[in-house]
Amino acid sequence: MTREQLFEQIQKKQSFLCLGLDTEMSKIPDHLLDDEFPLFAFNRAILDATHDLIIACKPNVAFYECLGTDGWKQFELTVDYIKFKYPEILIIADAKRGDIGNTSKKYAETFFKKLPCDAVTVAPYMGSDSVLPFLEYPHKWVVLLALTSNLGADDFQMTRMDKGERLFEIVLRKSSEWGNPDNMMYVVGATRASMLAKVRELVPHHFLLIPGVGAQGGDLSEVAKYGLNSQCGLIVNSSRAIIYADSTTRFAVAAREKATEVQLEMAEILKGIR
Amino acid sequence: MTREQLFEQIQKKQSFLCLGLDTEMSKIPDHLLDDEFPLFAFNRAILDATHDLIIACKPNVAFYECLGTDGWKQFELTVDYIKFKYPEILIIADAKRGDIGNTSKKYAETFFKKLPCDAVTVAPYMGSDSVLPFLEYPHKWVVLLALTSNLGADDFQMTRMDKGERLFEIVLRKSSEWGNPDNMMYVVGATRASMLAKVRELVPHHFLLIPGVGAQGGDLSEVAKYGLNSQCGLIVNSSRAIIYADSTTRFAVAAREKATEVQLEMAEILKGIR
Repeated sequence: MTREQLFEQIQKKQSFLCLGLDTEMSKIPDHLLDDEFPLFAFNRAILDATHDLIIACKPNVAFYECLGTDGWKQFELTVDYIKFKYPEILIIADAKRGDIGNTSKKYAETFFKKLPCDAVTVAPYMGSDSVLPFLEYPHKWVVLLALTSNLGADDFQMTRMDKGERLFEIVLRKSSEWGNPDNMMYVVGATRASMLAKVRELVPHHFLLIPGVGAQGGDLSEVAKYGLNSQCGLIVNSSRAIIYADSTTRFAVAAREKATEVQLEMAEILKGIR
Repeated sequence: MTREQLFEQIQKKQSFLCLGLDTEMSKIPDHLLDDEFPLFAFNRAILDATHDLIIACKPNVAFYECLGTDGWKQFELTVDYIKFKYPEILIIADAKRGDIGNTSKKYAETFFKKLPCDAVTVAPYMGSDSVLPFLEYPHKWVVLLALTSNLGADDFQMTRMDKGERLFEIVLRKSSEWGNPDNMMYVVGATRASMLAKVRELVPHHFLLIPGVGAQGGDLSEVAKYGLNSQCGLIVNSSRAIIYADSTTRFAVAAREKATEVQLEMAEILKGIR
């Protein structure tokens, strides 16, 4: 998916909402547990209920991988279903991968060739050759970790380097030379919305993937205030607050209600663009 | 596996060799391609031929994941086989995972509960809460990336921070407070052997996992010169140089020959300990 196509979807749906599918056996409604593929059955119902309100979808691989082969199967079923049924939705594999060049190449194959994902989250610690193999696929995206939403972000990402720059700023500055706003995005946690001004100085045109709105406590209007650009430039993720809004047979309806609340707020924010 | 058990194995086998199972369909002998599980068939033959020469085994998850569910199945078969047949061998899942706390918890479940791995490689960029969930399992290990063997290590890991420390030094200093030499190891690339002296100042007692000997050009005697401690403290990985030593039906015999060469060199080095 190109940047233009992504922005078109944002305008059409009046939304920049990403649905985080952090789906867990212990949190899905009981009546789904007898299904052959309970995580997939849950995801499918949530997607069918919210597809017109979201422009991206982000299954986190950890939640599938922890079930082994059976979990991977359900991860595959989920992304195949989105690609087939809702091809306009950007599929972000939240995998936080990254390794030496010949190994990152294999991870790129996993998500872009074996699976029909549009984007994958990548950790920057190992540098350029751990990221470049993902950039070889046209119209696919690297979503590089810059400033994450968790407490541990203070340990290294916020550390100042010898010229006063913080590590996440160096990551933004250097990595923005490896790709461009048409094939790279950055993760910037909503819990650090005030940092978005600094991020926008370094990467004014890139899309930012913002986790941490909802369960993690981030605020959407703050994020928009500092992060919005002329093509929106924001993909805001919400996982638990939407998918676990209700734990009964009403779960998909409740998810739609929650997603609608966020979408309406986003429609208001998007009025600010033009 | 405890640190004492690991050192006992090192003394018994006179080896600190880790077998890297970066197994690829395009590189294994043709006669294995008809097997239902070719990667596993290859791994099993290599393990049967080398188990008495190695103290650890490191399948890199990327090489299995890129085949999807079928690859995960063969990853599972491989680690189950090692745990059952050669329980004295430390199984390191080379996965380079790391995410926010509740997600890292899932990755820890994957490798330590669903699978019988003893250790997993973890990327430090997201800080303490991305690492701590892996440390909750007794006798299991986090192998944290410190200074990797690839060119991209120069991009961030070697960058100096405001007090003159390089990022990898800060990672070593801070993270050594999260765990201890009984549950943490560090990745330090053999291509940067001279940096091992600096690493040893910061973490004198931790085991170091050293990739990059062999195909990537690292030198074993250099590594030992700067990295050896009183309990060896080194696990040196070799992947391609051993497993792809020969591409015919002789592949396992050739792998044993290569592994023996390295083991004999290691036995000489171990004489220096006591």
